[in-house]
Amino acid sequence: MPAPKQILEFVDTNADAFIKRLAEAVAIPSISGEIERRPDVVKMAHWLDAQLKKYGVETKLVPLGKHVMDGTELELPPAVLGKIGKDPKKKTVLIYGHYDVQPASKSDGWNTEPFELHVHPTNGQLIGRGSTDDKGPVLGWLNILQAHQEAQLELPVNLQFCFEGMEESGSEGLEDLIVKEAAPAGYFEGVDCVCISDNYWLNMRTPGLTYGLRGLAYFKLTVKGPARDLHSGSFGRMVHEPMTDLIALMSKLVDSQGNILVPGVQDLVSVCDDKERALYDSLDYSIQDVEDAVGASIALSSDKATVLMGRMREPSLSLHGIEGAFYGPGAKTVIPAKVSGKFSIRLVPPQTPDTVGDLVVKYVEEEFKKLGSKNTLEVENLHGGKPWVADHEHWNYEAAIRATEAVYGKKPDLFREGGSIPVTLVFAESLGKNVVLLPMGRGDDGAHSTNEKLDRSNYIEGTKLLGTYLYEIAAQA
Amino acid sequence: MPAPKQILEFVDTNADAFIKRLAEAVAIPSISGEIERRPDVVKMAHWLDAQLKKYGVETKLVPLGKHVMDGTELELPPAVLGKIGKDPKKKTVLIYGHYDVQPASKSDGWNTEPFELHVHPTNGQLIGRGSTDDKGPVLGWLNILQAHQEAQLELPVNLQFCFEGMEESGSEGLEDLIVKEAAPAGYFEGVDCVCISDNYWLNMRTPGLTYGLRGLAYFKLTVKGPARDLHSGSFGRMVHEPMTDLIALMSKLVDSQGNILVPGVQDLVSVCDDKERALYDSLDYSIQDVEDAVGASIALSSDKATVLMGRMREPSLSLHGIEGAFYGPGAKTVIPAKVSGKFSIRLVPPQTPDTVGDLVVKYVEEEFKKLGSKNTLEVENLHGGKPWVADHEHWNYEAAIRATEAVYGKKPDLFREGGSIPVTLVFAESLGKNVVLLPMGRGDDGAHSTNEKLDRSNYIEGTKLLGTYLYEIAAQA
Repeated sequence: MPAPKQILEFVDTNADAFIKRLAEAVAIPSISGEIERRPDVVKMAHWLDAQLKKYGVETKLVPLGKHVMDGTELELPPAVLGKIGKDPKKKTVLIYGHYDVQPASKSDGWNTEPFELHVHPTNGQLIGRGSTDDKGPVLGWLNILQAHQEAQLELPVNLQFCFEGMEESGSEGLEDLIVKEAAPAGYFEGVDCVCISDNYWLNMRTPGLTYGLRGLAYFKLTVKGPARDLHSGSFGRMVHEPMTDLIALMSKLVDSQGNILVPGVQDLVSVCDDKERALYDSLDYSIQDVEDAVGASIALSSDKATVLMGRMREPSLSLHGIEGAFYGPGAKTVIPAKVSGKFSIRLVPPQTPDTVGDLVVKYVEEEFKKLGSKNTLEVENLHGGKPWVADHEHWNYEAAIRATEAVYGKKPDLFREGGSIPVTLVFAESLGKNVVLLPMGRGDDGAHSTNEKLDRSNYIEGTKLLGTYLYEIAAQA
Repeated sequence: MPAPKQILEFVDTNADAFIKRLAEAVAIPSISGEIERRPDVVKMAHWLDAQLKKYGVETKLVPLGKHVMDGTELELPPAVLGKIGKDPKKKTVLIYGHYDVQPASKSDGWNTEPFELHVHPTNGQLIGRGSTDDKGPVLGWLNILQAHQEAQLELPVNLQFCFEGMEESGSEGLEDLIVKEAAPAGYFEGVDCVCISDNYWLNMRTPGLTYGLRGLAYFKLTVKGPARDLHSGSFGRMVHEPMTDLIALMSKLVDSQGNILVPGVQDLVSVCDDKERALYDSLDYSIQDVEDAVGASIALSSDKATVLMGRMREPSLSLHGIEGAFYGPGAKTVIPAKVSGKFSIRLVPPQTPDTVGDLVVKYVEEEFKKLGSKNTLEVENLHGGKPWVADHEHWNYEAAIRATEAVYGKKPDLFREGGSIPVTLVFAESLGKNVVLLPMGRGDDGAHSTNEKLDRSNYIEGTKLLGTYLYEIAAQA
């Protein structure tokens, strides 16, 4: 049961209006990780709420309480919940998405203003922070709601929505809400399955479906020494320097081949057998794809399956940066007094932020002792999320596969993803229902990076995909 | 021949006015290392020029040409040259100082605005960027000029001045000027000795004289990988990460005990014999002094001489920070595309920026090859300066010692300093005259760091010291 012709036509004829709406959303710099942007995150919540109401969704903004960020107490941005349709004969699909984005400023290396959607004149790419992560997909649902309203068609399923504004900052406050509303008589009562569109195709050609996600454990190592920054001339080689200790510790976490050096972390992961390896060999993917996506020939291996497994079924450790050291251009001869190294580990089953966190804390503290430094170390295990793997033979996946075939005319790649969407697991565990990750964007969209984009065709065909998916769900009834 | 009573009295009675003048100077944020502050550096040059003229000094602002900083071409701030007195029967003393300062912003951890001189209500400390490095000492000379003008006394010597505005950024452009003006018929013709007040006492009790300085070699290691920043979820363990390579390289430069790991760098330095060691044992200095100065018990050794030698006769390597990585608060899961590690090595004779630079470049490139990374490395040997050691039995030092005894009533410590003032060597070599470093501030002033200060007594007694030094020079005639 494909989507009605007039819905698909409506999407095509209104493509420019949909892009205008995406530009509106991108223009709100809803960065959840920056204190001064918090009002913009809240503004984005109200913008989204108004859009949902306009298309007949019964909504409510749920306050999630306060949290402390870098010493400042802040009100968390509200969750935007919504419902449309109450037909007991229809399946009920819960849609999740997030309206916050990663930090971005032109000085990071953007070719255009990150918070002004730039439509590339020739390739039609829609460039801007949040275009693909995750405002584009969230607006895809708005587009479908509008299509049904204006075509005066009933939706084929009952829909529920759960949009949050803290996904890029650990989804603080959301888990409690989901667990509460997933309980009997909760807001999510009656949900049959969940659909999340916050991921990407494996490549730039073939649509995909994601049935697994890596978890995340984020760490902050702080080394403190002198009471204040020192002149390297006056004090160099008189005192223990915090940067020297921190760099030594950070160098013991991962090697240039991507191997994690924290004892026990890799041991938690099952060894890949030939059968599993065959799954990765079968995916429409090449080393060229990753090198095109990153714009350089820097793949860790020349073997396609090895590189894919590195992302999908192996943990990874990335060093993100240092807070408190000299970071500007030019040459400053300072001995920083207090420096914090930031790094995170992407997790795969059966790893959890706790099991891996304990190993990291123990190891880093042991390595610090070996340095024989008189400086002090603090290891913080910040936000994290468990990894997740779903049953990809469930009817929810069947519907997503059929919808993809209907819109794109080809079978989607079924794969696990390297990113973390911690709430996916929360939905799966608290509702006890199947969750499908149905991506809109491509593998080279550059979420979290400079010049993030969503291809026009992915936005428009992707809108059709989301709509068609709902009809394929209904067809399962 | 001590300074006339009325000069010393004038200094005491005008102390508050002198502090007000220091506040004026500190209020001009003459940061030579920041492009957008360049106009303030030039403003400071004109402020200083006007002050000198007011006290009868014949001055000229010498343009030093252009330079490129972080891709931007800028006019270098002018050198401020000056002369007062032409009596062939008098000795001619050349004074050097700098009117630029290190970067500073309250967010770095200052308790007060760095560019508003704060007079501490109880201990009388004068807190502000440049208070001790080097605006306080430069103003000390202005104070002495004013004292003579208002007391209608002739100066006991002929004075020449050379003030620059790029000292904190490698003294760009100055060396050529000095070499040119030191030549026969140059501006500096007739100079008998040089006095520089841009250093500090060894401790907080005993005045000192510096007869040696470490040199500097500043390096920038840039590792480049992907064309743009990447999402650590999508690409972690698929590609070689620049941060991993850079941290590995930076960890191979120095250990937590301060030992330099670059082969050959330490070998260039002579081994300390018992006779030399005795010099360091004799200095009025304790481990407590360094730990008081830095505000923590982090001395590299419990042996006083070892710690002093680390600063005075050993090279040191400090890791300053990383440009291009995530440096803010919060938790960003990014794989930075291009990162530059900044570090510098303080040099002692016979090391030079070139000999050490060659060793560093060779070593870092070899270590990078060992990493087996597909990223690319660029090693830059930025500005540097050779180390310097003077004859401390010269009459120039005799005069400085007597002046110190006259003002402070105690013998000064004679020592080598850990910092770098590259022009010192340029003056010594191009003029072929003796150079004395006569400090005004104390060992805990915190030059280059947050809450930089100059004690009120050091500013006022230090002004008397500079004045008395001139009379002691005259007494040598």
